[in-house]
Amino acid sequence: MPEVLFSVDQARSMRDQSVPGHNRWHPDIPPAATVRPGAEFRLECRDWTDNQIGNNDSANDVRDADLTVCHMLSGPIAVEGAEPGDLLVVDILELGPVPQETGPVSGQGWGYTGIFARHNGGGFLTDYYPDAYKAVWDFHGQAATSRHLPGVRFTGITHPGLVGTAPSPELLARWNAREQALIDTDPERVPPLAMPPTADTALAGTLTGEAAARVGREGARTVPPRENGGNQDIKNFTRGSRVFFPVYVPGALLSTGDLHFSQGDGEITFCGAIEMGGFIDLHVDLIKDGMGKYGVTDNPVFMPGNVEPRYAEFLSFVGISVDRRSDTNHYLDATVAYRNACLNAIEYLKTFGYSGEQAYLLLGGAPIEGHLSEVVDVPNACCSLYLPTAIFDFDIRPTAEGPRRADRGRCAVSS
Amino acid sequence: MPEVLFSVDQARSMRDQSVPGHNRWHPDIPPAATVRPGAEFRLECRDWTDNQIGNNDSANDVRDADLTVCHMLSGPIAVEGAEPGDLLVVDILELGPVPQETGPVSGQGWGYTGIFARHNGGGFLTDYYPDAYKAVWDFHGQAATSRHLPGVRFTGITHPGLVGTAPSPELLARWNAREQALIDTDPERVPPLAMPPTADTALAGTLTGEAAARVGREGARTVPPRENGGNQDIKNFTRGSRVFFPVYVPGALLSTGDLHFSQGDGEITFCGAIEMGGFIDLHVDLIKDGMGKYGVTDNPVFMPGNVEPRYAEFLSFVGISVDRRSDTNHYLDATVAYRNACLNAIEYLKTFGYSGEQAYLLLGGAPIEGHLSEVVDVPNACCSLYLPTAIFDFDIRPTAEGPRRADRGRCAVSS
Amino acid sequence: MPEVLFSVDQARSMRDQSVPGHNRWHPDIPPAATVRPGAEFRLECRDWTDNQIGNNDSANDVRDADLTVCHMLSGPIAVEGAEPGDLLVVDILELGPVPQETGPVSGQGWGYTGIFARHNGGGFLTDYYPDAYKAVWDFHGQAATSRHLPGVRFTGITHPGLVGTAPSPELLARWNAREQALIDTDPERVPPLAMPPTADTALAGTLTGEAAARVGREGARTVPPRENGGNQDIKNFTRGSRVFFPVYVPGALLSTGDLHFSQGDGEITFCGAIEMGGFIDLHVDLIKDGMGKYGVTDNPVFMPGNVEPRYAEFLSFVGISVDRRSDTNHYLDATVAYRNACLNAIEYLKTFGYSGEQAYLLLGGAPIEGHLSEVVDVPNACCSLYLPTAIFDFDIRPTAEGPRRADRGRCAVSS
Amino acid sequence: MPEVLFSVDQARSMRDQSVPGHNRWHPDIPPAATVRPGAEFRLECRDWTDNQIGNNDSANDVRDADLTVCHMLSGPIAVEGAEPGDLLVVDILELGPVPQETGPVSGQGWGYTGIFARHNGGGFLTDYYPDAYKAVWDFHGQAATSRHLPGVRFTGITHPGLVGTAPSPELLARWNAREQALIDTDPERVPPLAMPPTADTALAGTLTGEAAARVGREGARTVPPRENGGNQDIKNFTRGSRVFFPVYVPGALLSTGDLHFSQGDGEITFCGAIEMGGFIDLHVDLIKDGMGKYGVTDNPVFMPGNVEPRYAEFLSFVGISVDRRSDTNHYLDATVAYRNACLNAIEYLKTFGYSGEQAYLLLGGAPIEGHLSEVVDVPNACCSLYLPTAIFDFDIRPTAEGPRRADRGRCAVSS
Repeated sequence: MPEVLFSVDQARSMRDQSVPGHNRWHPDIPPAATVRPGAEFRLECRDWTDNQIGNNDSANDVRDADLTVCHMLSGPIAVEGAEPGDLLVVDILELGPVPQETGPVSGQGWGYTGIFARHNGGGFLTDYYPDAYKAVWDFHGQAATSRHLPGVRFTGITHPGLVGTAPSPELLARWNAREQALIDTDPERVPPLAMPPTADTALAGTLTGEAAARVGREGARTVPPRENGGNQDIKNFTRGSRVFFPVYVPGALLSTGDLHFSQGDGEITFCGAIEMGGFIDLHVDLIKDGMGKYGVTDNPVFMPGNVEPRYAEFLSFVGISVDRRSDTNHYLDATVAYRNACLNAIEYLKTFGYSGEQAYLLLGGAPIEGHLSEVVDVPNACCSLYLPTAIFDFDIRPTAEGPRRADRGRCAVSS
Repeated sequence: MPEVLFSVDQARSMRDQSVPGHNRWHPDIPPAATVRPGAEFRLECRDWTDNQIGNNDSANDVRDADLTVCHMLSGPIAVEGAEPGDLLVVDILELGPVPQETGPVSGQGWGYTGIFARHNGGGFLTDYYPDAYKAVWDFHGQAATSRHLPGVRFTGITHPGLVGTAPSPELLARWNAREQALIDTDPERVPPLAMPPTADTALAGTLTGEAAARVGREGARTVPPRENGGNQDIKNFTRGSRVFFPVYVPGALLSTGDLHFSQGDGEITFCGAIEMGGFIDLHVDLIKDGMGKYGVTDNPVFMPGNVEPRYAEFLSFVGISVDRRSDTNHYLDATVAYRNACLNAIEYLKTFGYSGEQAYLLLGGAPIEGHLSEVVDVPNACCSLYLPTAIFDFDIRPTAEGPRRADRGRCAVSS
Repeated sequence: MPEVLFSVDQARSMRDQSVPGHNRWHPDIPPAATVRPGAEFRLECRDWTDNQIGNNDSANDVRDADLTVCHMLSGPIAVEGAEPGDLLVVDILELGPVPQETGPVSGQGWGYTGIFARHNGGGFLTDYYPDAYKAVWDFHGQAATSRHLPGVRFTGITHPGLVGTAPSPELLARWNAREQALIDTDPERVPPLAMPPTADTALAGTLTGEAAARVGREGARTVPPRENGGNQDIKNFTRGSRVFFPVYVPGALLSTGDLHFSQGDGEITFCGAIEMGGFIDLHVDLIKDGMGKYGVTDNPVFMPGNVEPRYAEFLSFVGISVDRRSDTNHYLDATVAYRNACLNAIEYLKTFGYSGEQAYLLLGGAPIEGHLSEVVDVPNACCSLYLPTAIFDFDIRPTAEGPRRADRGRCAVSS
Repeated sequence: MPEVLFSVDQARSMRDQSVPGHNRWHPDIPPAATVRPGAEFRLECRDWTDNQIGNNDSANDVRDADLTVCHMLSGPIAVEGAEPGDLLVVDILELGPVPQETGPVSGQGWGYTGIFARHNGGGFLTDYYPDAYKAVWDFHGQAATSRHLPGVRFTGITHPGLVGTAPSPELLARWNAREQALIDTDPERVPPLAMPPTADTALAGTLTGEAAARVGREGARTVPPRENGGNQDIKNFTRGSRVFFPVYVPGALLSTGDLHFSQGDGEITFCGAIEMGGFIDLHVDLIKDGMGKYGVTDNPVFMPGNVEPRYAEFLSFVGISVDRRSDTNHYLDATVAYRNACLNAIEYLKTFGYSGEQAYLLLGGAPIEGHLSEVVDVPNACCSLYLPTAIFDFDIRPTAEGPRRADRGRCAVSS
């Protein structure tokens, strides 16, 4: 087991750890530890919400969650010799749920998927499913089942939703400017178009006083992925992956968190993954001047791991960029197309007895694939969603007999 | 070998076949043949452009191609007993290039990928690559190489770009209305937002006179995918796939064409696949009232084949929904995000010596994967492009030494 | 389509082709064609028995087949510049059944699997299944079904059972000597321990007179695999494979045949593959002095293709090296262990309603995997047989309810 | 984390644990714990040798290891309601190395592969490599590297080498009788043909006195796989596998141990896997009367896991059943054929600079596949060994340039 460079007492908030983590991006947040290139080490992680969600049958905790505290990250880790323009090589050696018994927190053998309500974050289908829902998943080694989704069992592609390096002051300023510009186009929208810095709930590692307050005022929220990686929610950042991150500040300042036991492409319920606290083992190295050498100037490059679960048969749903309610064409809009593919999959699953909310939660957490099939055949983009058939304990394929409808239980709802 | 129900003399235009095909969607186009459920049969196909593109080193033919004749389809095939509301089950048993020597047409051991010019169709990156380019590919069994892309060899996921059933008159009217509405928002745009019916070059099978003229006036262009499937350009419609199509007219009236030797997710150069004439073997069956039974009301459902090439290692490029030229955020726009992933991949490949156009052509034709990684982390969608490393005969992975730059030749350009 | 260098009129015996092939290994058989390194070409092939087996419901043809005419090979092809000590690089570009309609021969949309009788060749389980049986398979693109094995459908890993280079006179003499020595240990055994040269039915390409007679007297039978490759029956020699053959004579003299639509590891029924006539497209090249450079002195080396069907779930049967009838231990004998794994699989399948002969035929033709799990734990070797569950249209996995027994029809038997 | 039902203090011998395990098969060994069908639980395991092998650069410990203490097993676990004739369903949920820091034992971030000397167990190639050698492997998440095998890194298919149920007294008597009969055919052979009961070093769980002595006298050694499963060394018993074990005694009495971080098919160096202490999480269930229902009378049946590492490209070596030293044919002997495939692979790897011993160790521990390609083409069986090319950090494929020979270091040798 590699050395633990960031330890978490799962009985306490991230704010109360001996070395607290952070929930904003800012170059001033000091490193929690420093390593040399070639180091292997472990970081322990809190659930992304700092454990606001419980193992129960009510979605009220999802409905009422304070999203401004998210994501609670472990780090930063400084890498000796890293300089702006380098590529930081990060190998994801291993990761998983909380390995010891430490109390009733997510990652103790269970995790959850939540549909966030429209007034509190929303999700990909918030126009169709505006309320809060939840499914709790039990872990069986690398497999997951849920009392809220009977008839389903799958192997998770476990991964960190969020890994990134610290932005430079200039890059941070660009982020804040461009996102505020977007907000300004429709400032009253619910859910909002973007999340500006929020000082109240900011956590800035070991910083205190004015230094911490400055991080609160300036620090970028961790919600979106950006040039530094961040909350990319790429399900294939799994065991064995290698990621090449741009370095923007001396030491690179690598942070991670938001561990997912499993997630489908799109993470469509917003908190669509199976969320958990846990640990992650990393190896780091440097490619000096790698950004220039390889033209990697705007986003990380990565190599997915080779131990993803093997599924060989899929039932696939297609969507095109036509708004089905108004029969309106959207010009090559892959977002609309994928939304339709998701809605088509949900309607299909409903014929087997699942509720729409259950089907939506399933597509968020299961290892589904979302493909941009074509983005050029004007005016309709075409996206497709691949659902592995083997995750169901009944035959999900279309047959002449029609779907085997059954009582499929219910997910956790808000009261 | 199954019975040939639609035969093509590759030395002649689709217009001059004994039983011509069609290049518009319209319910009045009469069936070229009728089969019973359970039938297996072969359809021969022309290249989508009716052979306008040659095996040479100039992209002038791509620049000047008449796109209003596209796509030249084989069919329709009527299925006995099919009625609106059914699902038509179509198994893709086999497909491939033209199997006999019949002259210098695409599919005779070669195919091509074209980047269409902005003034003639455009492509996914037309703002960056506005001119016409071409790569000619040689087939070696299921593998392809190109003199215009030295250093690359891959196994094709051969598939039809276009398969679909005929629309009902009502559905056709909806298509024409909603697409015209989109055009009307910016009628002078280049390339246009959508393609209205174009009578001059319409081909309506065996129809003649006023019946054919009506198809020309009303028939929907075959460019976009729609509810009937159509030009979905899903690369995974390969050998062994099963597709469930909605049936909108009696007999279903199935047509296909636009065969691709290989294509990457997105078909990003517009004619991004490796295009060819050839043949396709199908098996059909019916699920009576399947649309209602399974809630399949808007798009086909399919199961991909299980003989796709196996690639185990990928180099993956990430893009987010920020316009990089203006540093503008686009709210959860997966199209922008995937465009950036493509641009990032191209910039990377350029450091090895390829031109941007070569890299763009490569990403169009090679079996790359395009994933909607997340579409919920406001404001930035994140898409990722998976490039198999084994298709290169040199090491494409980032290393401390930097990229192995070499002379990588050039693609076909327009004069 | 590459140039046809060896053409076969499927209406005629291999003996009556304009350029006949051969059914013995001998360095004197003259090349049917000569190519340069880098060439791509097609060879047409007869069924291995020269079409002795019919598409019918009797196994009498299997029972009475003349095995001394086997295998009817296409070639040899000489490669310019090939010299003893080189490695001949052979890419299997494509292969398949007979592509044109030419009469009722194997490969015309169908093939067969036979269990050979003990008195006529025998098979891996001849002590348990001593009589002749047959299953006829229908081809549906790359998939196969059989009226003799209802409930089963699978994608074939199509491959040539036999590819090899010509032996030198010295190597041929070694083969004949060592095989005769084995025969001499039990000359009366049924089936025989090995097959000595058999002059009567020998075919020596275009040779005639004394030259042909000499081939008859000296030519090694093509039954076993040897240093030159030959009848290795490796199911993974499929599309996209690259094989490196030792070169023993000037020109290498490459021959092939015995095409298999599909086969399981072991080819356990002797004619265990789904046999067919057809075609194969090859590319050849040379590694000068490759045998010495790479230490490849005794057998070919190969790289399997990457378009094999994907199966993700298997039911696996274990066998150990204990003779179950006499409860006798055989010291680390993998042959005994695999035989037990096969017998265990057959007993299992019988509980679903198949006869033992049907199950045996199925394991011969379906894409099963046979693994040498361990060969060191004295005294018992352990082999395991992996049966893909998806090839059955019912659930083959063990459940608390027990097997779903049904009427599974019958295979072709001998009268 | 599931409840720990068998705990191990890795600082102590298995003999000195609070509840000791066992190293013989005998129905009288009392259960260490009892569970109900449906239970999930963890068992902690010692290295198979009870930690006789060290993390150092000498193979003297392998040379001198006392093999009569092997394998140190954890258990037995009794399952309520299990009766002879049932099938015990065992799901391997998770397993891995020792998760806590507990001192310098195998499994603490490292493991080893050993070639046993001819006089102390031997191995598959003991006639060629009669002395003791060792490679120590470092774990990096699921990947392994070795200072004794530079240039190699692979992902392990982690699995227990040994899982089994207790034999009935009758079955145990059969084992002892048939193995003694084999020994009696050549009682002086080195290495011996089989291992009879050995009382001195027997460990019988919590038994003491005469009861323990009886286990010593009668208890079957754990070396070979037998009807109860046992030391099958099947590398695919990995995460997610489900095994169906015959039940021979009330309670089934399940035991396991001999954890392997990775192993190639065949486990050819005897201790060919990467051996380690660690833990395993299991789920158990019952199929009542499953042996009769499914005809599973002689060996377990299993379904491999679906998270094995994906390798897509292999270099494969063929062997036939001819003894190459004497040019003697062995009739359809798959053991001889696979030995030749292994020797061919070793000779190939030597041309890149590895010693034969290094190559042999590599083939034992790396995820190679060993296939029974054909076992019917008299007189030569053909086996093939699939070596993943991606485990090397240099190009292992044959090229015109010849192998890239380099200094590849050395493995641990005995003095």
